[in-house]
Parts: sequence; structure tokens; C-alpha cells
Amino acid sequence: MTGRLITLEGGEGAGKSTAMAFLAGRIAARGVELLQVREPGGTEAGEAIRRVVLNPGHAGLCAETELLLMFAARAQLVREVIGPALARGAVVLSDRFTDASFAYQGGGRGIDAGRIAELERWACGIRPDLTLLLDLPVDQGLARARGRGPTDRIEAERTEFFERVRAAYRQRAAQEPARWRVIDASRPLDEVLVALGTALDAHFEARP
Amino acid sequence: MTGRLITLEGGEGAGKSTAMAFLAGRIAARGVELLQVREPGGTEAGEAIRRVVLNPGHAGLCAETELLLMFAARAQLVREVIGPALARGAVVLSDRFTDASFAYQGGGRGIDAGRIAELERWACGIRPDLTLLLDLPVDQGLARARGRGPTDRIEAERTEFFERVRAAYRQRAAQEPARWRVIDASRPLDEVLVALGTALDAHFEARP
Ligand SMILES: Nc1ncnc2c1ncn2[C@@H]1O[C@H](COP(=O)(O)OP(=O)(O)O)[C@@H](O)[C@H]1O
Ligand SMILES: Nc1ncnc2c1ncn2[C@@H]1O[C@H](COP(=O)(O)OP(=O)(O)O)[C@@H](O)[C@H]1O
Ligand SMILES: [Mg+2]
Ligand SMILES: [Mg+2]
Repeated sequence: MTGRLITLEGGEGAGKSTAMAFLAGRIAARGVELLQVREPGGTEAGEAIRRVVLNPGHAGLCAETELLLMFAARAQLVREVIGPALARGAVVLSDRFTDASFAYQGGGRGIDAGRIAELERWACGIRPDLTLLLDLPVDQGLARARGRGPTDRIEAERTEFFERVRAAYRQRAAQEPARWRVIDASRPLDEVLVALGTALDAHFEARP
Repeated sequence: MTGRLITLEGGEGAGKSTAMAFLAGRIAARGVELLQVREPGGTEAGEAIRRVVLNPGHAGLCAETELLLMFAARAQLVREVIGPALARGAVVLSDRFTDASFAYQGGGRGIDAGRIAELERWACGIRPDLTLLLDLPVDQGLARARGRGPTDRIEAERTEFFERVRAAYRQRAAQEPARWRVIDASRPLDEVLVALGTALDAHFEARP
């Protein structure tokens, strides 16, 4: 028996972390083992790496180093947590995963998608079974995120950066429609959650 | 005008850090710009990554994550420090470089050398012009290193680990003799320094 990996993606303030608890409850109600993780992080070393990546003091961090750090945290998370959980049949729900690297370090920072795919093959072969993209205009997301406290190194980027991130997400979703569900996250939260629940249920019905 | 990269390699307690100051003085006496760095580290982000890698609390760090972290620090060091220094004609002297990844994460942890070479090509193409290997029996090196204070996560490995590290270093040196000089570091420090100085001078004479 193998489990499944479900990932939430989207820009700053799209509502990913907010949606985690809702989706977790909905998955757990199916009586399956559920594991929630977040990226970068999710392990002790991974959270330490997260602090290095997001530290606003590391202003000169180059794109390649940022990407290698993301994959370092991810490799640890996959081996220590996600892999074993999937092997015992659990559902893993992750707030971001490899697609975020294609969107942020690819679209945002300009690293070629082919080079990111090389690193993906090197560091961890696992692909999500379902990816839910919370899509909304950049300015709306940033306005929501602004209320959350001090901005980290990546949140401090300019609007054009996040426009490229959003475009990269939408492009990846369009290229692999069987895996992605694009949710209009500009709507009120209750509507977004209904849409997420519908997408989740459809996935479980298509692959019980 | 392009500079040159000279690296010091060897196991724990081989005398690398001790030799740095001696070699630095000898290079500076030639009237060239000299830059000293150490790995992992050498930049602000790199030193933060070093703390993650060497933290004895991260006992479960997997080999792939360790290697990705080493290359994350290295990519930053090459772009921020080594690359610009070489471009302006400086001599860069580094306490460890990519060969240490082949020895520690390759020989020591068992990651295939071909996979490490893939990551090397991905993260930083720079190869040293001269590599000085301080070679000595593992027990002698560990006895010297023991005096240095608390052991970090890698220093805490077992003797067999360091035997594999030493073997990997010697094998790499044998495979690329034009770049490597193997120094018998089991001798008294003054003799080791004489041997290092001779190897350094020979390199500068062969390539003024
Ligand atoms: N659909 C929504 N409409 C309005 N506000 C929302 C909506 N979804 C989330 N929020 C609020 O926006 C902020 C950012 O949400 P969060 O879940 O932290 O986003 P993310 O994790 O994607 O960056 C939070 O204050 C959250 O309550
Ligand atoms: N040739 C030598 N003989 C005896 N002791 C040495 C020699 N070289 C270095 N040492 C001592 O061994 C210890 C470890 O040296 P160090 O330069 O820190 O090694 P490394 O940086 O290679 O781990 C230091 O106390 C140093 O003074
Ligand atoms: Mg969030
Ligand atoms: Mg040293």
C-alpha cells in the first residue's frame, strides 16, 4: 500500500497556510493517516536551513545557493518524513513542494527550468499526486500577507518578482493539468475552501 | 589576467589550518594579491550553512542533504569571493574545496563519485590549479585534532569513516597527479612546511 502526496502552492498571502487545517480535517475524516509538513522545513535540519534561506540579513544570497538550500531541506524532508509516510500508506499534505522552486527560483530568480529539473532528479524523485494552486493577483496576496508580521528575505522582493512567480505557477499548472487544480483564491475564504474541498474529493474519487 | 586557486586538503588534524598562515606568507611574498578562505563557509550565508552542517544536534542529516549544503555554501563562495578574486588576478588559498566533498560525502558517506561530479558541474565549474594533500594515518590526525575543543558532527564519526575519507583523497590524487601534491603530514611540522613550500614554489615556477 502506498499513500499519496498532496501539495498546496501559490504566492504570498494566497491562503495556503490557512487552507492547511481545513484540508487536513477533510482528509482525516476519510479515516486515513495524515501527515502535515511545510517547505522549506519540516525536519530539524530543514527548519535550520529555512532560517538561513529566509534570513533578511543574507541579502547577497545567490540564486543557485538559494535553490541548493531548498533542495537540501527537501531531500531531508523526503527521506526522513515524506518517503516513510507514503511507504506506510499515509496521505502527506505539504504547504509547498518542488513546484515552489520552479516558481520562485525559476520564474522569480531566472534559473532555467531544465537546470532545476536536473537538481530535482538528483535530490528527490517524488512527485505530488495532486497539487492545488491558490491563484490570485499579486497585489491582493501581498496585501493579505502584509498583516502577518515582519517580512522575510523572499517576501521582501519587488512586485515584478511575484508576477514572474505567479506566471511560472500558472504555466506549470497548464503543462500538467492532470496533476494540478487551479483555485481562484481572490474569492472570500469560505468560497475558496469549498473549491478546495471539491477538488480534494474529486481526486479521492478518481483514485480511491 | 586570471589568478589561481590553490587548495589544502586532508583529514582531521592533518595540519591544514596550521599550514594556511605559512602558505599565505609565502604567496604574499611574491607580491601578488592573496585571498584566504575556508570551506564550508567563507561568506556570511556560508558560515550559517557551516553551522547547520556541523551542528552535532543534526544527527539524522542524510548524506544527500549534507552534500547539497556543502555545494550551497560553495556556490555562494565561488560567486561572491573566489570568482571575482580570480578574475582580478588574485591567488586564492582555500582550506578545503570540492575535493573534500568527494572524500567526505563520497568516500566517507558512500555517495557515488559520478553523482558528486554532476552536482559539481551544476553548482560551480571552478577547479583548483594546485591541490596540496596533507596525508597521514587516521589515528595520528585524530589524536592531533582531539586537542582542539568540542568535536563537531563530522569529527564525531568513527575511525572507519576517516579511513574511507583518506583512501578517497589518495585515490583522487593518484588519478590527477598534475594537479595534486601529496605531502607526508606525519612528520614534524617544520618538515611538513618545508615540503609545502617546495611544492608551492615548484607550482609558481612551472606556471609563473
Ligand atoms: N480567501 C481569503 N480571503 C481573504 N483573506 C484570506 C483568504 N485566505 C487567506 N486569507 C488571509 O490572508 C492572510 C494570508 O494567508 P496565509 O494562509 O498565511 O497565506 P499563505 O500561507 O499562502 O502565504 C491571512 O491573514 C489569512 O487569514
Ligand atoms: N606536522 C605536525 N606535527 C604535529 N602536530 C601538528 C602538525 N601539524 C599540525 N599539528 C597540530 O595538530 C593540530 C591540528 O592541526 P590543524 O591545522 O587544526 O589540522 P586541520 O586543520 O587539518 O584539521 C593542531 O594543534 C596543530 O598545531
Ligand atoms: Mg503560509
Ligand atoms: Mg582546520
